[in-house]
Amino acid sequence: MNENLFTRMQELRDLAGVIGLASWDQETYLPKKAEGGRAAQLGTLQALHHERLVDERLGAWLAEAKPSTPDEVAMVRILAKERDRAVKVPSRLVKALAEAQSHALSAWREARDKKDFKVFRPHVQKLLELRREMADAWGHDGERYDALLENYEPGMRVKRLLPVLGGLRSKLVPLVQAIDARPPPKRIFEGKTFDTEAQWKFTLHLLESMGFDLEAGRQDRSTHPFTGGTGLYDVRLTTRVFENLPLSSVFSTIHEGGHGLYEQGFSPEHERTTLAQTPSMGLHESQSRLWENVIGRSESFWTYFYPRYRDAFREQLKDVSLPDFLREVNRVERSFIRVEADEVTYNLHIVLRTELEVELIRGNLQAADLEGAWNQKTKELLQLEVPSVNQGVLQDIHWAYGEFGYFPTYALGNLYAASLWKAINRDISGLDESIRQGELSPVKNWLREKVHREGFRTDAESLITRVTGAGLTDEDFVSYLKMKYGALYGI
Amino acid sequence: MNENLFTRMQELRDLAGVIGLASWDQETYLPKKAEGGRAAQLGTLQALHHERLVDERLGAWLAEAKPSTPDEVAMVRILAKERDRAVKVPSRLVKALAEAQSHALSAWREARDKKDFKVFRPHVQKLLELRREMADAWGHDGERYDALLENYEPGMRVKRLLPVLGGLRSKLVPLVQAIDARPPPKRIFEGKTFDTEAQWKFTLHLLESMGFDLEAGRQDRSTHPFTGGTGLYDVRLTTRVFENLPLSSVFSTIHEGGHGLYEQGFSPEHERTTLAQTPSMGLHESQSRLWENVIGRSESFWTYFYPRYRDAFREQLKDVSLPDFLREVNRVERSFIRVEADEVTYNLHIVLRTELEVELIRGNLQAADLEGAWNQKTKELLQLEVPSVNQGVLQDIHWAYGEFGYFPTYALGNLYAASLWKAINRDISGLDESIRQGELSPVKNWLREKVHREGFRTDAESLITRVTGAGLTDEDFVSYLKMKYGALYGI
Repeated sequence: MNENLFTRMQELRDLAGVIGLASWDQETYLPKKAEGGRAAQLGTLQALHHERLVDERLGAWLAEAKPSTPDEVAMVRILAKERDRAVKVPSRLVKALAEAQSHALSAWREARDKKDFKVFRPHVQKLLELRREMADAWGHDGERYDALLENYEPGMRVKRLLPVLGGLRSKLVPLVQAIDARPPPKRIFEGKTFDTEAQWKFTLHLLESMGFDLEAGRQDRSTHPFTGGTGLYDVRLTTRVFENLPLSSVFSTIHEGGHGLYEQGFSPEHERTTLAQTPSMGLHESQSRLWENVIGRSESFWTYFYPRYRDAFREQLKDVSLPDFLREVNRVERSFIRVEADEVTYNLHIVLRTELEVELIRGNLQAADLEGAWNQKTKELLQLEVPSVNQGVLQDIHWAYGEFGYFPTYALGNLYAASLWKAINRDISGLDESIRQGELSPVKNWLREKVHREGFRTDAESLITRVTGAGLTDEDFVSYLKMKYGALYGI
Repeated sequence: MNENLFTRMQELRDLAGVIGLASWDQETYLPKKAEGGRAAQLGTLQALHHERLVDERLGAWLAEAKPSTPDEVAMVRILAKERDRAVKVPSRLVKALAEAQSHALSAWREARDKKDFKVFRPHVQKLLELRREMADAWGHDGERYDALLENYEPGMRVKRLLPVLGGLRSKLVPLVQAIDARPPPKRIFEGKTFDTEAQWKFTLHLLESMGFDLEAGRQDRSTHPFTGGTGLYDVRLTTRVFENLPLSSVFSTIHEGGHGLYEQGFSPEHERTTLAQTPSMGLHESQSRLWENVIGRSESFWTYFYPRYRDAFREQLKDVSLPDFLREVNRVERSFIRVEADEVTYNLHIVLRTELEVELIRGNLQAADLEGAWNQKTKELLQLEVPSVNQGVLQDIHWAYGEFGYFPTYALGNLYAASLWKAINRDISGLDESIRQGELSPVKNWLREKVHREGFRTDAESLITRVTGAGLTDEDFVSYLKMKYGALYGI
C-alpha cells in the first residue's frame, strides 16, 4: 500500500486514540475547573483530525492506493468512505451543527429544570433541519434517515429496520402483558447497604472471570458507565457504585466488560489501522448485551458467581436464595426510563424512539407535536401515562446532540446478541456446564475468533449472517425471551 | 493581533496540553501492554506540533503579527523564537537525534545492568556530536553550550554560569567539611513502618495547606514524582509512597506542590497562550526548592505540622521530638547519588556535572575519558571514591536523552529560591509567626503576585532582579545555608 497513505491512516488512528484518552479523562480524573480548557483541547484535536482527513493529498493517495492484501483493500475502503462523508459536508454545516448542539444541550438542561418541553422544542426543530441537510449532503435514495443510520450502522436501511422493529413490537407487547399478569418478584435489597469497596472488588473479579485483560485495559469510576480508551491494548471501562443499589455496579461492569472484550479482541496486526474498529454500534452493543443479559442474568452464570457474591455480602444476603436473586435480576416492569428498563421492555423504548425519529426526519412529524406523539406511543407500547416530560420526551440526551439514528442500534444489539448466543450454543458442546463452573473462556474465545478479530473487515449484518447462518431477525431474541421468562414467571 | 496567528498559538498550546496529558497518563494509569501504542501516539502528536510550528504560513503571520498590547508583544516574541529554533534544525538532524536517543537509552540500561560504562560510551560520543551540530544550527558566539542552555534557561550563558558555580564550589566544600566533622543526627525511622494510606492523607493535607487547588489539579502516584498536566486549571502532581521511608512522600509532595502552585498561578488571561509558561527551568525549580527545602525543612514549618504528623503516626513517632525530627530532615551527608542528596551537598553534584558537560561540548573532554573525570571530580568535590559506575557516571538518565545543559538549572533553582526567600521576608512582616501557625497563604500570595502571574513575560534573571533587587547570586543561598546549618550542627 502507498506509504504516505498508510502513515496518514496511522496518524488519524493515533489522533482518534488521543481523543479517546482526553474524553475518558474528562469523565474520570479531570479537575473541575479544567472543563473549559478540555473542551478547547478536544475541539483542537477534532479539528486537526478533520483537516487531515479531508486533506486533498489524502484523496490522491487513496485514489492510487495499491492495496496488496484483502485487509489492505478493506482499510482503504473504510478510510475512503470516512473521508468521502467528511468531504461531502460543507464546513459551514459542520459549524452550524456544532453551534446548534451546544445551544440545544443548554436548552435541554433548562427544559429539564423547568420540566417544560417548549424550551427544548425549537432546538429539536433546528437540529432536525440541519441533520436533514446533512443527510442530503451525504446522499440517499429518498429516505434521509438511511444516511443518518449510516453514521452508526453502516449498511442498515429504514426499509429493513422498520419491519423488524414492527415484528418485535407485536410480539413484545403481549409478552409484557403476560408477565405483568403474574406476581412480581419480592424486593430483596430494600433497606440494605453494600460496602462500595467490596462491590468494587467483586466487579474486578467479574472482569477477570470474563477474561478482560487488566494489563491491556483498566476500570475506573464515572457518573455514567462507558467504554473508551486509546487502542486495543488500552481499553478503559468505567462503572458506578451505589451503596443501596448493589446490582448497578455488577451489571454495568458486565455490560462494559462485554464492550471491552470486543475492543481488546481486535486483531493485533490491525493496530493503528481502520480495521481495528467495530463495523457498527449495533454489533458493539450485541457484545455488551450478550454478556450483561444473556449470560450475566442467567441461572448458569449465578450458579457459580452467587456463592462468591454472597461471600462478599454475607450479612445482606443471608436470607436471599439463588432463585430469589435470579428473580430480582430478571425483574420485568413497565417503566418510563429507557436506561433502567429490563431486557423484555427495553426494546419497546427503542421502537418508540425509532418510529418517532423516522417520522421526524421524513418531516411527517414536527417538533411541535413530538411531546404528544411520545406520550401517545408510551400508552400504546407500555400502557403508561407519562407523568412528567423528564420521564418522557426529555429523558435522553441523544437528541440534544442531534443524534438521530443512534437509538435503533440498541435494539439491533439485543437481536444480534440472541442470534450469536444461539450460534455459540450450536458450536460449543457442554457450554452450559462450563459456565456453571465459572469457566467463561469458551464464550470469550468463540466471540474473539468469530466476531472480535474481524474488526471492520465487513459490515455487521454480513458478519452476523456468516457466523449464525441467518441475518438480522427478531426470532432468536423473542424465543430466548419466551423460554427464559416463561420459566421465571411461570407463563 | 493577527487572528490566524492567535488561533494557531492556541492550537499549539492545546497540542502541548494534550501531549502533557498523554505523558502524565503514561506514568500513572496506562495499562502495561499499551506502552508501544502510547509511544506512537505521542510521536504523532509531537510530529503534528512540529509541523504546525514550522509551517510557513505561521512564519508569515508572525511577520505581520500586529500585537497591540505588551502581553501580545511577548506572546509573539516567544512563539517566534520557538518557531525560529524549530526551523533552524534540519529534520534530518531531528530524526538522527531521536534515533540516537532511543539507542542510547537502551545502551544506558544495558550499561547499568553490566555496570560497564564502555557500553554507553559510544552513544554519549554520538549524542555529543549531534548536540554540537544542533548548537551550531541554533547559533552561538563560539560557546556551543550557550545554545544548549537556551533550551532550558533562556538568556543564561556559560560565562555567567561558571563563575557562579565556581563560587558555590569554593564555599560549599568547606561548609560540608565543617558539618562532616560534627556528630551526625540519630536514625529515627529505622525498623518502623508507616501506613501508606495515612501517608497519602498527610500529603493531601500538606497540599491543601500550601494552597494547591485540588479543583484545578490533582495528585496521583508514580514511580518518579513529577509535575505535569494540561494547563493552569489542570495541574497534575505525582508522588511516591514507601512504607519504610516516610519522608519520601512528604518531601516529594511539597516539592511537586511548589511546582504545582507555580503552574496554577499563571495568569488566567494567559490561558492557551505562550505566556502561561515558565521562562526557565531554573525558575520553575526555584519554586519547588523554596517549598521543599527552605520552607518545608524549616523549624517554623514543622512547629505547626509536626504535631499533625505525629497524630497520623502516634506509635512510630512517640519517642521522636521535634528537634530530633528536624535534624533528621536536615541530615547532611556526602553521598554518591544526586537525587538523594541534601540541600548542602546537592549543588556540588550539579557543579560536577556542569563542569563536565561544558568541557564535553567544547570538545576538551572526550566520552572515553568521562568516567575517569567523573570519579576524579567526585573525589575533589565530595571526597568520595566512586565504588561503581551505577553510583557514578551512569546514575542519571539525562545524558541518555542527549540532554546537555539541563543540570545547571537545578542549581539555579536553589540560588533563586534563596534570593526569593530573602525578598519574601523583606516584604512580609511577621511571616515566620504565620508559618508557625500553619498559615502559608502569605508566601503563596507573594509568589503568585511577583513570580507566577508573570508567566513568560520576561526571562528568569530579569524577573529575579526586579523582584529581589539583585540578579543571579550565590550569596543569599550560602548565607541561608550557613545560618541554618550553623545552628543545626552547632558550627
